[in-house]
Amino acid sequence: MALVELDLDALQEYRPEVAEPADFDAFWDETLATVDRLDLDPTFTPIDNHLALIDSYDVVFTGWGGTRVRAWLHVPAGTQPGAGLPCVVQFQGYSGSRGLPYADTVYAQAGWAHLIMDTRGQGWSTGGVDPTPDDAPEAGIHHSPGFMTAGIADPHTYYYRRVYVDTVRALQTAATSPLVDPGRLLVTGASQGGGLSIAAAGLAPRVGIRLLGSAPDVPFLCHFRRAVALTDAHPYGEITQFLAGWRDQVPAAERTLSYFDGVNLARRADAPTLFSAALMDPVCPPSTVFAAYHAYAERTGQTDKHIAVYSHNGHEGGGPYQLGARLAWIADRFA
Amino acid sequence: MALVELDLDALQEYRPEVAEPADFDAFWDETLATVDRLDLDPTFTPIDNHLALIDSYDVVFTGWGGTRVRAWLHVPAGTQPGAGLPCVVQFQGYSGSRGLPYADTVYAQAGWAHLIMDTRGQGWSTGGVDPTPDDAPEAGIHHSPGFMTAGIADPHTYYYRRVYVDTVRALQTAATSPLVDPGRLLVTGASQGGGLSIAAAGLAPRVGIRLLGSAPDVPFLCHFRRAVALTDAHPYGEITQFLAGWRDQVPAAERTLSYFDGVNLARRADAPTLFSAALMDPVCPPSTVFAAYHAYAERTGQTDKHIAVYSHNGHEGGGPYQLGARLAWIADRFA
Amino acid sequence: MALVELDLDALQEYRPEVAEPADFDAFWDETLATVDRLDLDPTFTPIDNHLALIDSYDVVFTGWGGTRVRAWLHVPAGTQPGAGLPCVVQFQGYSGSRGLPYADTVYAQAGWAHLIMDTRGQGWSTGGVDPTPDDAPEAGIHHSPGFMTAGIADPHTYYYRRVYVDTVRALQTAATSPLVDPGRLLVTGASQGGGLSIAAAGLAPRVGIRLLGSAPDVPFLCHFRRAVALTDAHPYGEITQFLAGWRDQVPAAERTLSYFDGVNLARRADAPTLFSAALMDPVCPPSTVFAAYHAYAERTGQTDKHIAVYSHNGHEGGGPYQLGARLAWIADRFA
Amino acid sequence: MALVELDLDALQEYRPEVAEPADFDAFWDETLATVDRLDLDPTFTPIDNHLALIDSYDVVFTGWGGTRVRAWLHVPAGTQPGAGLPCVVQFQGYSGSRGLPYADTVYAQAGWAHLIMDTRGQGWSTGGVDPTPDDAPEAGIHHSPGFMTAGIADPHTYYYRRVYVDTVRALQTAATSPLVDPGRLLVTGASQGGGLSIAAAGLAPRVGIRLLGSAPDVPFLCHFRRAVALTDAHPYGEITQFLAGWRDQVPAAERTLSYFDGVNLARRADAPTLFSAALMDPVCPPSTVFAAYHAYAERTGQTDKHIAVYSHNGHEGGGPYQLGARLAWIADRFA
Amino acid sequence: MALVELDLDALQEYRPEVAEPADFDAFWDETLATVDRLDLDPTFTPIDNHLALIDSYDVVFTGWGGTRVRAWLHVPAGTQPGAGLPCVVQFQGYSGSRGLPYADTVYAQAGWAHLIMDTRGQGWSTGGVDPTPDDAPEAGIHHSPGFMTAGIADPHTYYYRRVYVDTVRALQTAATSPLVDPGRLLVTGASQGGGLSIAAAGLAPRVGIRLLGSAPDVPFLCHFRRAVALTDAHPYGEITQFLAGWRDQVPAAERTLSYFDGVNLARRADAPTLFSAALMDPVCPPSTVFAAYHAYAERTGQTDKHIAVYSHNGHEGGGPYQLGARLAWIADRFA
Amino acid sequence: MALVELDLDALQEYRPEVAEPADFDAFWDETLATVDRLDLDPTFTPIDNHLALIDSYDVVFTGWGGTRVRAWLHVPAGTQPGAGLPCVVQFQGYSGSRGLPYADTVYAQAGWAHLIMDTRGQGWSTGGVDPTPDDAPEAGIHHSPGFMTAGIADPHTYYYRRVYVDTVRALQTAATSPLVDPGRLLVTGASQGGGLSIAAAGLAPRVGIRLLGSAPDVPFLCHFRRAVALTDAHPYGEITQFLAGWRDQVPAAERTLSYFDGVNLARRADAPTLFSAALMDPVCPPSTVFAAYHAYAERTGQTDKHIAVYSHNGHEGGGPYQLGARLAWIADRFA
Repeated sequence: MALVELDLDALQEYRPEVAEPADFDAFWDETLATVDRLDLDPTFTPIDNHLALIDSYDVVFTGWGGTRVRAWLHVPAGTQPGAGLPCVVQFQGYSGSRGLPYADTVYAQAGWAHLIMDTRGQGWSTGGVDPTPDDAPEAGIHHSPGFMTAGIADPHTYYYRRVYVDTVRALQTAATSPLVDPGRLLVTGASQGGGLSIAAAGLAPRVGIRLLGSAPDVPFLCHFRRAVALTDAHPYGEITQFLAGWRDQVPAAERTLSYFDGVNLARRADAPTLFSAALMDPVCPPSTVFAAYHAYAERTGQTDKHIAVYSHNGHEGGGPYQLGARLAWIADRFA
Repeated sequence: MALVELDLDALQEYRPEVAEPADFDAFWDETLATVDRLDLDPTFTPIDNHLALIDSYDVVFTGWGGTRVRAWLHVPAGTQPGAGLPCVVQFQGYSGSRGLPYADTVYAQAGWAHLIMDTRGQGWSTGGVDPTPDDAPEAGIHHSPGFMTAGIADPHTYYYRRVYVDTVRALQTAATSPLVDPGRLLVTGASQGGGLSIAAAGLAPRVGIRLLGSAPDVPFLCHFRRAVALTDAHPYGEITQFLAGWRDQVPAAERTLSYFDGVNLARRADAPTLFSAALMDPVCPPSTVFAAYHAYAERTGQTDKHIAVYSHNGHEGGGPYQLGARLAWIADRFA
Repeated sequence: MALVELDLDALQEYRPEVAEPADFDAFWDETLATVDRLDLDPTFTPIDNHLALIDSYDVVFTGWGGTRVRAWLHVPAGTQPGAGLPCVVQFQGYSGSRGLPYADTVYAQAGWAHLIMDTRGQGWSTGGVDPTPDDAPEAGIHHSPGFMTAGIADPHTYYYRRVYVDTVRALQTAATSPLVDPGRLLVTGASQGGGLSIAAAGLAPRVGIRLLGSAPDVPFLCHFRRAVALTDAHPYGEITQFLAGWRDQVPAAERTLSYFDGVNLARRADAPTLFSAALMDPVCPPSTVFAAYHAYAERTGQTDKHIAVYSHNGHEGGGPYQLGARLAWIADRFA
Repeated sequence: MALVELDLDALQEYRPEVAEPADFDAFWDETLATVDRLDLDPTFTPIDNHLALIDSYDVVFTGWGGTRVRAWLHVPAGTQPGAGLPCVVQFQGYSGSRGLPYADTVYAQAGWAHLIMDTRGQGWSTGGVDPTPDDAPEAGIHHSPGFMTAGIADPHTYYYRRVYVDTVRALQTAATSPLVDPGRLLVTGASQGGGLSIAAAGLAPRVGIRLLGSAPDVPFLCHFRRAVALTDAHPYGEITQFLAGWRDQVPAAERTLSYFDGVNLARRADAPTLFSAALMDPVCPPSTVFAAYHAYAERTGQTDKHIAVYSHNGHEGGGPYQLGARLAWIADRFA
Repeated sequence: MALVELDLDALQEYRPEVAEPADFDAFWDETLATVDRLDLDPTFTPIDNHLALIDSYDVVFTGWGGTRVRAWLHVPAGTQPGAGLPCVVQFQGYSGSRGLPYADTVYAQAGWAHLIMDTRGQGWSTGGVDPTPDDAPEAGIHHSPGFMTAGIADPHTYYYRRVYVDTVRALQTAATSPLVDPGRLLVTGASQGGGLSIAAAGLAPRVGIRLLGSAPDVPFLCHFRRAVALTDAHPYGEITQFLAGWRDQVPAAERTLSYFDGVNLARRADAPTLFSAALMDPVCPPSTVFAAYHAYAERTGQTDKHIAVYSHNGHEGGGPYQLGARLAWIADRFA
Repeated sequence: MALVELDLDALQEYRPEVAEPADFDAFWDETLATVDRLDLDPTFTPIDNHLALIDSYDVVFTGWGGTRVRAWLHVPAGTQPGAGLPCVVQFQGYSGSRGLPYADTVYAQAGWAHLIMDTRGQGWSTGGVDPTPDDAPEAGIHHSPGFMTAGIADPHTYYYRRVYVDTVRALQTAATSPLVDPGRLLVTGASQGGGLSIAAAGLAPRVGIRLLGSAPDVPFLCHFRRAVALTDAHPYGEITQFLAGWRDQVPAAERTLSYFDGVNLARRADAPTLFSAALMDPVCPPSTVFAAYHAYAERTGQTDKHIAVYSHNGHEGGGPYQLGARLAWIADRFA
């Protein structure tokens, strides 16, 4: 990447045009209305997590198409119903699942509720227990290996339609927990988890959820067109691989992606935000991150926006350094 | 690979034990009985293929679970119903589809009927028209990128159950064409297409089809256990990638694969066969091919078996040289 | 490549200055006059190609320096002398030979004559039968591995002088066949075959041949200077490798290449043309293709020019999609 | 790796001869006596870690040569002097430091004390705060990039002499904490951290510390000779790189390494142990791990030994799965 | 690299701003004054070099911090004290040592004295005899593998402070030899040796040495900031690797490097110079070389400057071609 | 490579059967007789080499087919006719030429005559002056990139027939120099230069030359069959690449190579020898070197044989260390 990408001065000014379909809002209204007809039916089952200081719950709720989506809810040990903890909802990077229950509890260690949502169908890099299927019939229609092109010929069949909806349902699930204060929710995640944080932040106002913040790190799923042109690294490269064979489906795929572009979803977010980007990131190139950052809350006027920049990092980004910054920022948001 | 693999002398004697589940035959009887309840409903629609010498038909038939599977049927231009052409049924390599209709017509050029079956869900390397979906609900349950691990936790949900069944249905479809002599069918294909040729040859007797031959080139889907241990090349490597994350699913995955192992299916084939293998093949290592070759027709006593060996080739194998040998061999089989 | 190359908007306007030696025309006049003194002596020997629908002939003619160059001529089975078929003359990609006779007959399947010329000395990726030697004494003078730098110190000894001449001789050979209409010839090929199509189209007017069309795909051998600076992929990289050692021969090599640059040859073509380019092609970067495309027929005023652009492809370009477009375009040209 | 390495059956029986110098015990007695003359001078300074449930202390103690070595001590929030918590002492993988204080607290979450030691000089992959220097004058003598060959010409100057000593000092430091029960210490770590766990377990008896257990994962620093022959992956490859230049220092380097080989240190361990190995690990090949495992406690007769094997993993090994197994095993050891 | 780097026209004009600390001169005055207090104590011991035409001496002198630095002095066989030979002082590329005494004697073959200095701590790619340690206590403080980041947090502890000082001491050592004319010294070297040639040329005036020339080839250690952004090749990549972990040390590292940047040192040189650069150099990108070249002697007004450009080479640059040019240029300087 | 290759104990016993054609001796007698009819016509032209201590001569002699082959002859400055210096004849590694005249004079520095022969057609990695063409008409017949397969279909047209003959002519040329003692010749070289040293040593007795020694380092061109199976590194990989395409030419190529196999030539050598091998050499695997070493002088009974083994090196082998050993060994041979 290096100087092939824009340098930091140019990134600070990078506000590209990203196509937005005329029926973008209608699409999402219809989508959310469709899933809204399904009972959320959340369940919270306490489990043994080997950890004396943390109580963990196996969470299941109904996502898109009736799929039962899994999550963990971690809270400080002994937290009782009515505790009204603020809750951090975390989405996972591409390939990951919610993982094993003792693997990541940091926001619960900080004293909050911590909900980690499975990304349907994924999890091959982490494994775990009781995975969440992507059991939609359209899941298997022609695609290149990976999830990026599953159903890409039409926005109604695209994989991330189901996943984006799941993020909203996860927020609704968190809000039903007697341990959680439904008025103090915040989303975060890195890479795909960052992209989903933007999606959740962009869709939440549409279902009447007012998030206290969104904190996407090196987010994926932003400015697809440039990303695909700039990098052949996976997972963006899955799109290139698919369109290299299905050459006639380029227009359809580009149309579909425009409904899911983090830039378009970011415009509609209204929560304060803390982004991070890495200048040598070959997976989620910084210009695609800045494109979403600059667009963030453009429609809502929220001006409480920050972006941390890591100059010598690749896709690992700020890692534990940014975790520290995020813990402090969330503490402020929850104060 | 080279000397890490067995050398030719050792390959000639390589007859490994490959686990076969006790209910292998019952599983396939049940599977074939299930699909047999669905109407095959084959359609043959003439299309314009730009080729003066070849008539092509867009073929659709009902495969596993009701999926409408696509194929091409190519015949010499002007072939009329009742012609009774012998038919070569061809399966495609991993990532490929039936492709565009003028892309591969070699067996029709030879004067025969030539049916090329889509592999459901695949096609990203070639593109084409009207792809075949893998529209089973279990298609999207947790897997690593690619099709090798889709539904691998159980033989009933495994992707190749659906595909293997489709190969049998393709044979039945060919047999219904008024241009084809249903008593003169033969299967062939390279890599995945070779694996499917073995599967079709192993399953055909179970539905009363007596093939005139099977000609698998550098076949995939054979002796999974050794393949996964020997190579990290894709697509076998997709299995490793999946089990590296879902560490607790190794026994379930190994059990599932045993129902689909080309070695076990080869044992049950009864048609004469022409294999080919390449000694420097890192994708389908030659020992996995020889394992299937030596097992081939073990249960049926068919002794008309040949294997061509290419000493300096990788997965491309004999390529056009083997095509020439195959054309001659098929001409003999059809004579 | 990606954004390091020009984007499509810039490519549409990319008309670089490419050096042309003052004696370019004199050089080619002298070259063609030299070979013209040799008897073409074409022979057409029918062979068995395993294909019922195609008749194939083993063709031999005298190319540069007396070398006997091989080709296949494929025609619909039963074509008789006097048939007057229009003929597609095809040149091969770098590393390939005319191949085995049943490997590629698509233009004969379309109902035309199809002549495939060997590229002297090449063929290692395909093998075949009775290869064509490059038996010039200057073939072995110092060069880096491959054919790109053989004799590069002087235009008179450069490998492609011999090959470009061979393409003209192939056209003359096709015209002598009693099965072919000498007034309806067309050239095509991909990569090196595309570069040779441009060369043949640029040289044909010089010997009084009026082609009905030229259809180069992702052509090689264009705008050498930029190509070498832009990519280290082979075969352009062979030039870099040679000049990295023979540092003092840079000016001589650049001078030599200017006599063979597809941009300079394209300027002199007068036949209608159908190009194709791929935006992610690291082997023949699209700017080098567009440089030739924009220059094409600049000197002759032919305005029937088209270029197909594949946005997500590498050097495989449009593959079967472009084959379909080409079959339709040729049918129009031959109509 | 795959079948080039031994398969699992062979690994179960793999007990290679590993050279042990005659003065091995004398060397370590002298080494430990030397450092014993230095005041340990441990300090424990509470810090803000952003975590409500965990109290963290910045720990500093005097290691080899007077170097002030850093560590974190994490305990459940509110733990008071005299609590007598059992303590897990963790060593880090090559390239890592103790990291940032909120990055890894899992054993404290389990209810125990958790001490994480810096590896002197390292930390470039994680960064952190107040790094530990390797401020010995011999640190900079000729070596290849990395720490593996620093001072390798003589066991007295070798880098790991200093580090192995630090591990013993870390145990002594943990024992001085008023929060910790000095009779309930246990060591663990992965990769280099695994190698250091073996070293600490092998040296602890020499200073009168009786560990309750050692849990090395995919340990590094074992059977150097085979490791260097089997893999060119780093960090073992640093040794190859060094000896490729300093060809005359092979005997000296092999002698030095014999004093630090995990196989020789394992022989002297007396605590129960839980190893893990991964069959596709190219960094710490499984045969080198099994060599240490089989040798473990050979001299002391401890028979409470287990090894977990991950069949499809590389150097990531069992990851969170093995963490779960380890948490359960440690709970048993501390019960 | 290719067109991502600047092209030759742009390089000819490339004069970037490179930060120079306000106390740059004070830092180097203090540094040189510090080492000046140490006795140089040069020794010259004749050795057997297997070469009848060359006499070689094992040279040792006191460098920074008292380290005894090694060098070879080669002269024509039979040269006697008082000969007053002009002397070429050569510095080595990264990873190399002075090597074995018969490995490189070219300037002695030309009839001059030839002194080759060890780079402290290095030598792993060549080996040799009696290596030079970097036995400063700060050598081992936290760094990423390699020497580029050793002590980078502060200019006083940075590795190249010690090495740059050694180059001045090597000049002073050469001047003490009874075989050498102390008024006719010249420095050269490639890559790191080129960077050290610039450093020596920039520092020499500060200690009253007037060099007859400096001849850096493809010099390293110039315009660090751009180099690190432009290439991830090693050794510049070691800096990126370090700062990717120690994210908070970016400002400190950039400040440190500004004291050692070849651009800043070049400004202060006053000797005639012959640079060389390679346009496809991924290790020392040509823009970083041109940055130093254009800055060279900016403060002193020396205008006798030349740069040779190799258009098709990577980091090997002009190799033997430039050696020939350099021999001729040095002969002129010594004439 | 590592443990895939044989370990040192096995190498010490490795004496494989290598096929030798029945007419091997007849072939070489005929070949040498053919060239013997051509006038050697050696010329020695003094040139300016920039080196005061060395006199260099541009040497030209007639090699196979009348090609004028180039060489350098270096001697101590001032050597006069009749000096009767012993002479080291050096052959170059694959890709190299005799190079520039000041690039390598080590054996002249040792006080001897030093003749360096061009390898016809090669030199792309070094460049140089007045290259030696391989101007045989068969040089350009079909081959894969590189020289390994040029004319491989028949021993009479194979490239190395011409080169092996050139080595004998170089010996004869050296013997004609008035500066050289024709009775004291010795051959050496590394990689291809090592293979040519073996060839020259094996052929010299056939023309009545009694060499004082041969010193091949990590020799190439030995035990082709195993080499090709064991490594895909170039240049052996060129053979694989060729036979992967020209699948039907495997027997012809293997027959041709048997006339040029260093194992068969080594058998016939009668001079004392000093080999070297590197255990991690992926280019010339050590088993192929040992195969030649063990066969060396099998037919002549010469027992003065040594082999140096470098345990941690790749194809660079012993480098300067082995140069030192070789200088000492040659000094003994010439004493």
